[in-house]
Amino acid sequence: MNKLYIIKIGGNVLDDEKSLNHFLKDFASIQSPKILIHGGGKIATKIGDRLGIESKYIDGRRITDLATRDLVTMVYGGLLNKQITAHLQTLHCNAIGVTGADGNLIKAVKRPVGKINYGFVGDITPESVNSSFLYFLLKQNVVPVFAPLTHADGDILNTNADTIASVLAIALSKHFDIRLIFCFEKEGVLQDVNDETSVIRHLNGELYQQLLKSGSFHDGILPKLENALMAIRSGVKEVLIGEHTHLIANLGYETKGTLITA
Amino acid sequence: MNKLYIIKIGGNVLDDEKSLNHFLKDFASIQSPKILIHGGGKIATKIGDRLGIESKYIDGRRITDLATRDLVTMVYGGLLNKQITAHLQTLHCNAIGVTGADGNLIKAVKRPVGKINYGFVGDITPESVNSSFLYFLLKQNVVPVFAPLTHADGDILNTNADTIASVLAIALSKHFDIRLIFCFEKEGVLQDVNDETSVIRHLNGELYQQLLKSGSFHDGILPKLENALMAIRSGVKEVLIGEHTHLIANLGYETKGTLITA
Repeated sequence: MNKLYIIKIGGNVLDDEKSLNHFLKDFASIQSPKILIHGGGKIATKIGDRLGIESKYIDGRRITDLATRDLVTMVYGGLLNKQITAHLQTLHCNAIGVTGADGNLIKAVKRPVGKINYGFVGDITPESVNSSFLYFLLKQNVVPVFAPLTHADGDILNTNADTIASVLAIALSKHFDIRLIFCFEKEGVLQDVNDETSVIRHLNGELYQQLLKSGSFHDGILPKLENALMAIRSGVKEVLIGEHTHLIANLGYETKGTLITA
Repeated sequence: MNKLYIIKIGGNVLDDEKSLNHFLKDFASIQSPKILIHGGGKIATKIGDRLGIESKYIDGRRITDLATRDLVTMVYGGLLNKQITAHLQTLHCNAIGVTGADGNLIKAVKRPVGKINYGFVGDITPESVNSSFLYFLLKQNVVPVFAPLTHADGDILNTNADTIASVLAIALSKHFDIRLIFCFEKEGVLQDVNDETSVIRHLNGELYQQLLKSGSFHDGILPKLENALMAIRSGVKEVLIGEHTHLIANLGYETKGTLITA
């Protein structure tokens, strides 16, 4: 099977122009088929502030009301997604910026209202992915660039970018030998959050359970690890977590970051 | 050759929810391959006002400065384009929302600075179109929905939606029997702008030149007619101009609108 790189970047790359340019150059230079998923970053909050749209939280969980949904559709699906796409085109990377609505690539279920009404948020599974169309795009040497948005019943829905990356990886693992990469601000998953040198070089399901029980993981890394482990349990061979400048230019012979396997 | 419908809608459809819903239902029901191009509408001005971005004009010509460019990237490429795409998905129309940057579909030239600096505006020709990728998308029964944006050298550029429609029509006329349709607020091209019943039913190059010389055409219709005639001169068989409620549901046996042929 051909290798497919699925790479997710978040605010720490998106919010810094130099960092984003560096990343995109490295990304464009990857010769294998590849998919990029970008999160949001501070720009949505900035534009939201100027539009008088407040970030809303209930019990510490972010709520996507109608105004916020329209804001992220503009900023993630329009501004960020198209800026990245146009930039990649100059690097001879034939990017196509998409949301889950485009080509019905990711059809979500709007999160049911329970104790909390999260608003316009989409929940997805690997079955949500139109993998045949995605496969067709990749075969055309086109590089899909996903904004963290899906759709259901005519609504654009806010969806976690890490989850999109994992779900795409699982859905495409029938067609490709997947390498899923989460870029974030640290060099890897730390065993001790206060010690930047405590990167766990290799993590598998067993070690994960041990460290989880011993309370080693910082709260912030847990959702990312859950997404990574879900991918590994569902047929994705390797997940790599780390800081982009060390990872993307050295694919294939990494010495940094955390490698997760079954 | 297969028929291909290329349909452009503007503010009069986009600014009215009921009108847009009506149009999208008719559009989705077209069984042949089809492409939609949407313009802007008042929503960009509204959001621009809230963000403190002023519309700028020099000698009556709109200028796209950096702030305006980012605004239209958000509103046309994000909000409007994704709302339309998600809506079409509910009507079993597998839409994919795109700008010219996506898949390098339309590569423009930034308008050279002459007497006026128009800013981030893209000029295009039929050679600007990546027709092979567009052809592939259409063969997959995917329906491209274009925002009026193109790209050059890493920049998203504002581009007239009528021009995009004409240029796409010409570029694809090798592959398809094209029917290019411009929807606007009137029933057709009027011989007398003050008489709504004076619709010119059939216009060709010769009659156009005659009426142009006699000063029959209203200034507002001239750019649209220029785009239509450019398409006809370059291999597009038929252009139809009129009001969408009369046109789209009755394709093939229209009794309203202005039909333009060679």
